[in-house]
This record gives sequence, structure tokens and C-alpha cells, in this order.
Amino acid sequence: MQQHGCILWFTGLSGAGKSTLSEAVARELRAQGVAVEVLDGDEVRENLSKGLSFSKEDRDTNVRRIAFVANLLAKHGVIAITAAISPYRAIRAEARAKSQAPFIEVFVDAPLAVVEARDVKGLYKKARAGEIPVFTGISDPYEAPLAPEVTVKTGEESIAQSTSKVLEHLRHAGLLGSV
Amino acid sequence: MQQHGCILWFTGLSGAGKSTLSEAVARELRAQGVAVEVLDGDEVRENLSKGLSFSKEDRDTNVRRIAFVANLLAKHGVIAITAAISPYRAIRAEARAKSQAPFIEVFVDAPLAVVEARDVKGLYKKARAGEIPVFTGISDPYEAPLAPEVTVKTGEESIAQSTSKVLEHLRHAGLLGSV
Repeated sequence: MQQHGCILWFTGLSGAGKSTLSEAVARELRAQGVAVEVLDGDEVRENLSKGLSFSKEDRDTNVRRIAFVANLLAKHGVIAITAAISPYRAIRAEARAKSQAPFIEVFVDAPLAVVEARDVKGLYKKARAGEIPVFTGISDPYEAPLAPEVTVKTGEESIAQSTSKVLEHLRHAGLLGSV
Repeated sequence: MQQHGCILWFTGLSGAGKSTLSEAVARELRAQGVAVEVLDGDEVRENLSKGLSFSKEDRDTNVRRIAFVANLLAKHGVIAITAAISPYRAIRAEARAKSQAPFIEVFVDAPLAVVEARDVKGLYKKARAGEIPVFTGISDPYEAPLAPEVTVKTGEESIAQSTSKVLEHLRHAGLLGSV
């Protein structure tokens, strides 16, 4: 049984649950003996993109770097999970086009009202107060995917339910070695 | 037979033959069915480090990024070959310390006189003329490894000979699945 790599590209607002969900999916996959790597937005910024701002150009550069690394892993049989906001449609399309492995876009769809009310990291409050000048959903657009492979509604579903949806898609796509 | 990943870290002056040798090693390994990825200095600068200068600080950042990506690949069973000049000892030591897989430093040892006389890319001439302000070996130090796992003398050896030395080391280290 040869494992097929792929890119599992989570996208969604800050606080929508990308990191939590990607870790839950990764845990499940590891338990099944699948090679998986999570490229979390914050971790990648620290290791690959320190010094970049949150301007559109720098965000695009950051996303390109994540895509570059995810592709390297995926072509060697790893399920590479990315969990950056990646708010712009065009650059996500570019990441998909350049991927040498299957590219599965997972829209972590939580309404702004919900994530702002939760405000786990207190960032929305700061963004509303103008303390963070560029912030997705507040002062910078989030362009929702038009045709994501998977949509999870983290405002309504449990993490277990959302995780199942993602795993179900991988299974049906034949990416877990057994369909 | 489970393949063990590792980092094969080439270091040496510009023009010493790092790219040529790393491609030759990669070709041999691929022919043996080994998963291998070359992170070439120029390619990595384009994809991970565009905008960085050649100051010590930015060079260190570039090398840290290469090490980060090489480690991700190596821990998933890939032989990750890096081929950047990586002139500073301390940052190579850091890359080694952070690696979660065996780290094999390959000193591509060609005398400055030899690589400058060849000057394949015409860079040494420009560096001597002051057109390139910071250039390893001319206006910036190259700190040779003190205890590299492999040393190849590309000024004296053929590419085939140097390639064999590297493969021989991998075999003896048990990193090719059969000792």
C-alpha cells in the first residue's frame, strides 16, 4: 500500500477553527499510520516569513511559500495540511495550479459574527479599535472559495463532525490507500 | 524496507560544484528508488527568501528556512539535499542541532584560486571589481567545516568520484535501507 500525498488546504477567517480542525484531522490520520504534516499559519510565519507584513503582496508571498513547502511534502507521499487564513482567491488558485499532488480546499466557514463574538485571541477587538490596521474580515476582504472540495460549518458542527467530513472526503477520493 | 530520511547538507564556495554534485547524487539515488529532493540555493532564494539580501543576518535567515524545509522532508523519509553556500559555521551547527533526522555535512572543498579561475557565472570577476559588494570568499568569510561527515575535493576529483564518496557514506551510515 503506497500512500498518496495531497495538499489539504484549510482557508477561513481568523478564529474560524482552522488550527483546531487541522490538528484534529492530523491526529486521526496519524492514528491510522498516515504521514501527515501541519503547516500552521503562525508557525510558518515564524519559520518562513518573518519580517513580512500583512499587506496583500506580503500575504501572497507568505501563501506562496506555504504552497511551495506543502507541494514538496505532498509529492513525497505526505498529506500536507495548511492552516493559514489565505484570504485571496487568486493566490489559492495559484497554489492549486502549481500543486503536483491532489489539492483539496477545505472552507472553514464560520460567520464573521460568530468568530468576532468568540474572539479567542482578542484580535477582532483590536482590529475594530484600529490597533491592527489590516485585518481580514474587518479592514481587509476574505474571499470565500467558490467551489471548495469540502465545506465545514464550524459555527454549527462539532469538531468531530467537521473532522469526519474531511476524512470522508479523503477516503472517497482514494487518498487514504483504501477506498 | 522503510527508507530513513536524512539531510545531506552541501556547503562550499560559489562555483565549488555544490549544485552539480547534488544533482548527480540525486540522480543516483532516484535510480535506486530512493525519495530525494534537492533544495538548491538559487531555487530556495526564489521561492522562500525573495527580498533577502546577502548580509550576514539575511543569509542566516535564508539558511534557517532551508533547514526548516529540509527537516520537514527528512522526517518523512526523504533524503533532503541542500546546496546553498551556507558560509557560516554557527548557523550550520544550528541546522544540525535542530534536525530531527541524521544530518550529514558534505564539504565541497575547492580552493578559492580554482573556483575563481573557473568563474563559471562570472561572479568572482564582478566581486573583485566591487560590483557585488558582499561575496563569499572575496569580501565575506567562508568558514570551512571543522568536522564534516564527508569532504569532496572537486578541484581534484571527477564528479563521479565525489558522487561515489557521498553515496558510500550514506550506505555505511545505513541510510539507504541496506548496509
